[in-house]
Amino acid sequence: MLPSGGPALFTDFYELTMAASYHARGLLAPATFDLVARELPPRRGYLVSCGLEQALDFLEQWHVDDDAREYLRSLARFDDDFLAFLRELRFTGEVWAIPEGELAFPDEPLLRVTAPLVEAQLVETFLLNCIGHQTMVATKAARVATACGELPFVDFSPRRDHGGDAALYGARAAFVGGASGTSLVLAGQRFGLELSGTMAHSYVMRFDDERDALRSFALDHPGSAVLLIDTYDTVRGARLVVELAPELRAGGALPIAVRLDSGDLAALSRAVRDVLDAGGLREVRIFASGDLDEYRIAELLGAGAPIDAFGVGTQLGTSGDAPHVGVVYKLAEDPEGPRMKLARGKPSLPGRKQVHRVARDGEYAHDVLALDAEPGVPGHPLLEPVMRGGARAGAAEPLAAVQARCRRAVAALPARLRRLEPVGPPYEVRLSPGLESLVTKLRARYGEM
Amino acid sequence: MLPSGGPALFTDFYELTMAASYHARGLLAPATFDLVARELPPRRGYLVSCGLEQALDFLEQWHVDDDAREYLRSLARFDDDFLAFLRELRFTGEVWAIPEGELAFPDEPLLRVTAPLVEAQLVETFLLNCIGHQTMVATKAARVATACGELPFVDFSPRRDHGGDAALYGARAAFVGGASGTSLVLAGQRFGLELSGTMAHSYVMRFDDERDALRSFALDHPGSAVLLIDTYDTVRGARLVVELAPELRAGGALPIAVRLDSGDLAALSRAVRDVLDAGGLREVRIFASGDLDEYRIAELLGAGAPIDAFGVGTQLGTSGDAPHVGVVYKLAEDPEGPRMKLARGKPSLPGRKQVHRVARDGEYAHDVLALDAEPGVPGHPLLEPVMRGGARAGAAEPLAAVQARCRRAVAALPARLRRLEPVGPPYEVRLSPGLESLVTKLRARYGEM
Repeated sequence: MLPSGGPALFTDFYELTMAASYHARGLLAPATFDLVARELPPRRGYLVSCGLEQALDFLEQWHVDDDAREYLRSLARFDDDFLAFLRELRFTGEVWAIPEGELAFPDEPLLRVTAPLVEAQLVETFLLNCIGHQTMVATKAARVATACGELPFVDFSPRRDHGGDAALYGARAAFVGGASGTSLVLAGQRFGLELSGTMAHSYVMRFDDERDALRSFALDHPGSAVLLIDTYDTVRGARLVVELAPELRAGGALPIAVRLDSGDLAALSRAVRDVLDAGGLREVRIFASGDLDEYRIAELLGAGAPIDAFGVGTQLGTSGDAPHVGVVYKLAEDPEGPRMKLARGKPSLPGRKQVHRVARDGEYAHDVLALDAEPGVPGHPLLEPVMRGGARAGAAEPLAAVQARCRRAVAALPARLRRLEPVGPPYEVRLSPGLESLVTKLRARYGEM
Repeated sequence: MLPSGGPALFTDFYELTMAASYHARGLLAPATFDLVARELPPRRGYLVSCGLEQALDFLEQWHVDDDAREYLRSLARFDDDFLAFLRELRFTGEVWAIPEGELAFPDEPLLRVTAPLVEAQLVETFLLNCIGHQTMVATKAARVATACGELPFVDFSPRRDHGGDAALYGARAAFVGGASGTSLVLAGQRFGLELSGTMAHSYVMRFDDERDALRSFALDHPGSAVLLIDTYDTVRGARLVVELAPELRAGGALPIAVRLDSGDLAALSRAVRDVLDAGGLREVRIFASGDLDEYRIAELLGAGAPIDAFGVGTQLGTSGDAPHVGVVYKLAEDPEGPRMKLARGKPSLPGRKQVHRVARDGEYAHDVLALDAEPGVPGHPLLEPVMRGGARAGAAEPLAAVQARCRRAVAALPARLRRLEPVGPPYEVRLSPGLESLVTKLRARYGEM
C-alpha cells in the first residue's frame, strides 16, 4: 500500500530541505548509506532481515508527481530550480542487501544504498520504516516459531496492528519468521499466504442456543470448521461438540478442531482434550488463542498443555515486548571518501562494507564486518546486489524460500542465542583489519578538528 | 492508504466464513456492535478517541470488487450465491461515535455500529485496526503534551512506525493529542499539518568541515534553519554557531534554533544555552530530540533543562511503553434482542448503549453507561450519530477543532488521572439502572442454559 499521490512525499521534511541545499550547491555525486540496527531489541539474540521486496518496489516506483510538487511549491520553501529538478528525479542507484530471512546483527548493513546523494537521502524515511517494521515482525515470529517447536502458529494480529500496512506487511513478515498463515484475507491475496480463520464469539451469540451455533457453522464449512467453544463455558462447549459429533460426522462435517480463546488455557486444554477423547473425538485438534506470545506458548507447552496449534495476534504483529528495531541510515562514504559520525554513544562505521559470516560445522561462529574490496576476509559474504541503476537485479524470491532460509539460519545459531532469553555473550561481529584501521584513521582526523 | 484491490479484503478470514454462514441461513437482519477498549493500557488514565474519519472513509468506500471476488472464488470455500451476494454488498448501516479528541474509558463504545449482520461483521477488522491505532497514538501524544506543558513538540516517528499507514495516520493522531506538527511530508499534504524538520548528521558529514555544513544549511534556509550541532561534539557545535553568527545575521540567515540529538540532554542543553547566551544568541532556541518520550521530557524539564521544543519519534509513533489498545468489537444486540458474552474474564455489555459524562464545576466527575433510550440518566451524552444509511451524517471536523477538544478534555480530567503515572481510583464508569438490570437478566438466562 504505497501512499497515493506519489510515494515521494513519504519522507521526512528535512530530507527535502537537505536535498534543496545539496542541489543548490551541486553536491549531487553518489554517496553510500548503510541501513543498520544500532543494537538488538531487548531479549533478542538476532534479527531476521525482512522487507527488502517492498523497499525495492518503492525505489522502482519512486518519483515526485505533479500533486506532490504543487504541494511542495505551496510551502514557499523551495525554489523553481529545485522543483524542476525533482520532476525529473528517479532512483537510479545501486542496492546491496542481506537476503530476506537471513539473520543480521548490530552494525551490519541490512541494506547498502549507493546513489546520487539527493536520491539516496530522499528515500531514507521509507526504507527505514519498511525494513525496520518487517524485520521487527519477522524477528518476533522467529521467536514464536522457536517456542512452538514443531507446532504451527498463524498470524491473528491484523485488528491490533498499527494501521493497514502494518497488518498487510506484518502478515508477510510473520510468514518469513515461521508463521504458517494469516487471518488477513488481503495478505492471502497479495502474497499467496494460507488463510486461517475460525469463528467469532458474535457468531455463537447470534444463535439462541450455543449448540445451534456450533452445528450451523460446522455444517456450513464441512471439513474445515474450527469451532469456538468458550463463549459461555469452555468445557460445556467441548461436551456440545461431542454431543453433536454423530450428526456432524454423518454429514461429513466433523470439525477439524476446537478453539479456546480465554481462561486458563493449560487447564482448559487438558479438560477439553479429556472430554473430546472420552467422546471418541481423538482426531479433533485443539487450537488456542488469546493474548499469546512466545513466552506464554513456551509456558503452556512446558506445562504439557495438549494444544496442537496457536493463533498469535497482538503480540506478534506489534512485537509487543520490543515494538521497534532501532534502525538508522548512515552516510558511510561520499566522493570525498569514507565518512564517520562520532556523536556520543552513536558512532557509525565508515566506508563501503561487506558482511562475512563464518560458520563452523554448520553453526554460525562469528561475522566479520569488512571493507567491500578487502582481500583475505574469511567467511561467506552476505550482502548481495539486488538493484543496479534503479532496476532490480533479479526476480523476487518465493516467500516459501525466504521462510526456509530463516528456519535454516535460526537453526544454525548457537543455541544460547536462539533462546527466548539469550544467555552468554552476544553473537560476535568483528571488524576486519582494513575496517579497523580506517576507523582509527578517521577518529584521529575528526579528533583533530 | 486504503488497500488497493478494494478495501473489502482487509478483513479476517473468519468474517467471511461467518458471513457465508449467515447468508446461507438468511441471518441478515441488522445487529449492533460496540467497538470498545476492554481496559486501559498500562500507566494510562484515559484514552483519546481517534481514527473516526478514516473509519468513515472506509465504510463509505467499502465494496467487494471483481479481483477480490475472483480471489475468494479461487479459495473454493464460498459458493456462487454468496459471491453474487458480495458483489452487490455495500455498507448501509448507522454509526454513532464518541467525537475524535474526546476522552473515553473502558467499556465505553468508541463506535456503535448498527447494520445488517454481514455488513457489520465484514468491516470489523478494519475498524478495530484503524480506531485502535489512532486512539493509541493520540493517547500517547496527549501524555507527551502533558509532560511538555506549554512547550511544543513535533512528531518525528515516521521512520520507526509500523509501515506507511502507521506513519501517516500516526502523524494525524499525534496532532490530535497535541503535537504541533510532524516531519512526514505526506501527512502535511494530506492533513494540512505543519511540517517540521531540521537537518541530519549525514548533511554535516557530507562537508569536510562542520562549520561549512552549518553555514551552508543556514544560508540555504534563511529564517527557518534549525542547526544540528551534535555530529562530533555538541558544545563545540554551539561555539561554531556563535562564530558564524555575525556572517549569518548579515545574510538574514541566523538559525532559529540548534538541535541536540544525543548525549546527556540536560547537561548539554545547559552548556549550549550558556555558549549561545554568552555569544549574544539569546534568541536562538534549543530543540531536543533522541529517544524521547513523556517520561524523559518530564525528567528533563523537571531538572530545569533549558529546552524550548521537542522532537518525539519512536516512542510516540509506536506508543513504545504500551504498543496497543485492547479494542474489541462485540455483538450487543440483534433482532432477537440484547446479547452478552460471558467468556471468562472477558464479559461484554448488552444492548444499544449511550455514554453520559457527568461534570461538576468543569471537571469530569464520572460517566454513566446507559441503554440508548433510557430516561433520566444524568450527564452529557457523548455518542453522536456520524453515519446513517451508509452515508456520513456531516462534514469532517477540522483537525484543529479536534485537537482543541482533546486539550479541553484532558484539562477537565481530575489531576490524578492526567498524571504520567495515574494515582488513586480509576475514572468511574457507572452502569445505569436500566443497563444493570439487563445485565442481571441476561446473566441469569445464560447461566440457566
